[in-house]
Amino acid sequence: MNKIKYVEKWADDTEFVIYPNKLLEHKQTPFQTLDVYESKTYGKFFSLDNWIMVTEKDEFVYHEMITHVAMATNINIKKILLIGAGDGGVLRELCRYKTVEKIDMVEIDEEVITMSKKYFPKIAISFDDKRLNLYIEDGVAFIKNSKNIYDLIIIDSTDPFGPGEGLFTGDFYNDCYNHLSSDGILINQHESPYYEQYSIPMKRAHKRIKDLFEIAMVYQIHIPTYASGHWLLGFASKKYHPINDANLLAWEKLNLKTKYYNTQIHKGCFALPNYVKEMLAE
Amino acid sequence: MNKIKYVEKWADDTEFVIYPNKLLEHKQTPFQTLDVYESKTYGKFFSLDNWIMVTEKDEFVYHEMITHVAMATNINIKKILLIGAGDGGVLRELCRYKTVEKIDMVEIDEEVITMSKKYFPKIAISFDDKRLNLYIEDGVAFIKNSKNIYDLIIIDSTDPFGPGEGLFTGDFYNDCYNHLSSDGILINQHESPYYEQYSIPMKRAHKRIKDLFEIAMVYQIHIPTYASGHWLLGFASKKYHPINDANLLAWEKLNLKTKYYNTQIHKGCFALPNYVKEMLAE
Repeated sequence: MNKIKYVEKWADDTEFVIYPNKLLEHKQTPFQTLDVYESKTYGKFFSLDNWIMVTEKDEFVYHEMITHVAMATNINIKKILLIGAGDGGVLRELCRYKTVEKIDMVEIDEEVITMSKKYFPKIAISFDDKRLNLYIEDGVAFIKNSKNIYDLIIIDSTDPFGPGEGLFTGDFYNDCYNHLSSDGILINQHESPYYEQYSIPMKRAHKRIKDLFEIAMVYQIHIPTYASGHWLLGFASKKYHPINDANLLAWEKLNLKTKYYNTQIHKGCFALPNYVKEMLAE
Repeated sequence: MNKIKYVEKWADDTEFVIYPNKLLEHKQTPFQTLDVYESKTYGKFFSLDNWIMVTEKDEFVYHEMITHVAMATNINIKKILLIGAGDGGVLRELCRYKTVEKIDMVEIDEEVITMSKKYFPKIAISFDDKRLNLYIEDGVAFIKNSKNIYDLIIIDSTDPFGPGEGLFTGDFYNDCYNHLSSDGILINQHESPYYEQYSIPMKRAHKRIKDLFEIAMVYQIHIPTYASGHWLLGFASKKYHPINDANLLAWEKLNLKTKYYNTQIHKGCFALPNYVKEMLAE
């Protein structure tokens, strides 16, 4: 039997293994290796450089949580910069807000968008939205050359091992700070506290952000197809505290249907285990 | 190369694989298969019927969270029934409270206790505590034949596939209810919402408990070595609400050092994703 086998190395001695039914696509893009699979448990999923990015089963966890926490904190967000996120999942969630006026999206790898439109039509659903300006280029260079000011910047990056590396530097975070309005919010993919290959960049990223922003917090999500299932997102801002200043009643009045996010989770996700708090304080 | 390989089947098409350095023990007890391994990432860990029960790396998550949420809700808990928990981790956490007067612990498989004392001395640390009465027998039969009344019952069971099966029945939960004081609390290992083999018994257990208890809630923990890393514990009681009635200031005054639990987590862990809430309401 010649089974297809997808193996992800979570630690030196640990593998997460899926036996998909089909490999739908395998491609070397100019930036990374892209694979799309079809499986029983997860539906379709895709990986970049052999790290799972999105599965149909649990993509909503990540996409909702990287979006709605900021949007419910400041209900008046109008101008947004979205970096990475080529699959379209964050864009889908952002486009649900009628109050949003402009979304500049900067994805380095056009092939991810093309792939997502083909295999994940329920995720790549908002690329025709009139508020979207799509730039196929490096997020680091884009922000360096931009004069725009945003209410919200979302960094939906890969891990800091390949093309995503520049999106974890102090220099880049500093550029983000300078392109945020006086009540601006920065949300970033913040790695994980459990396995060392993720906890080291997690601590480093947090230190860099904390040194720049008035408020720098971290919140956690349960996403089983990311290593350890215990994933973190960063909330940094110049003014708004994500719990004390959140406008949760206004958010509830929007009547957005969500599968993971709700206003109790909004508050609960910032409650971190002691060992994670200690790591972030290091 | 003849590597040792530990494989856990999280779903039909999904495996969690560890390559331990050593198999320290492999034993068929009268009730289950018991294996003890030594590994780089997790330190020592043991499995029952090839399900990881405890790893040195993250045992504190489960043991703290199954204990302190109840203890901080009712700071006057004196008489406790502990079912399962042969490794001694819950016992260790309970024995940190000077206010506890009596712990009846009922473990069906003495070999688990013997193994834990040998390989996990930091976990099996409280078996000499004078407040402990240890019974080597089936928890289901024990409670049926007992006349004792407890302030807290903790069901630290295996999954409902082997010897733990009886600890998930309505009949057993009913016996628990009848052996609790008027302000009694029941805490149970409540499986997981993500993979179907766990979510089906999770929904079933919740329905049974909800039908019996005045208050029946569920809280979540991040424990990466249990399938999906997204695990649930049940909080049921006759009187106390785990958040509204919790005595968190009194708990903080006890000055117990913990690695996962804290009083923010106490509240935050009850905030469940919408998809989990929907499953529990089914």
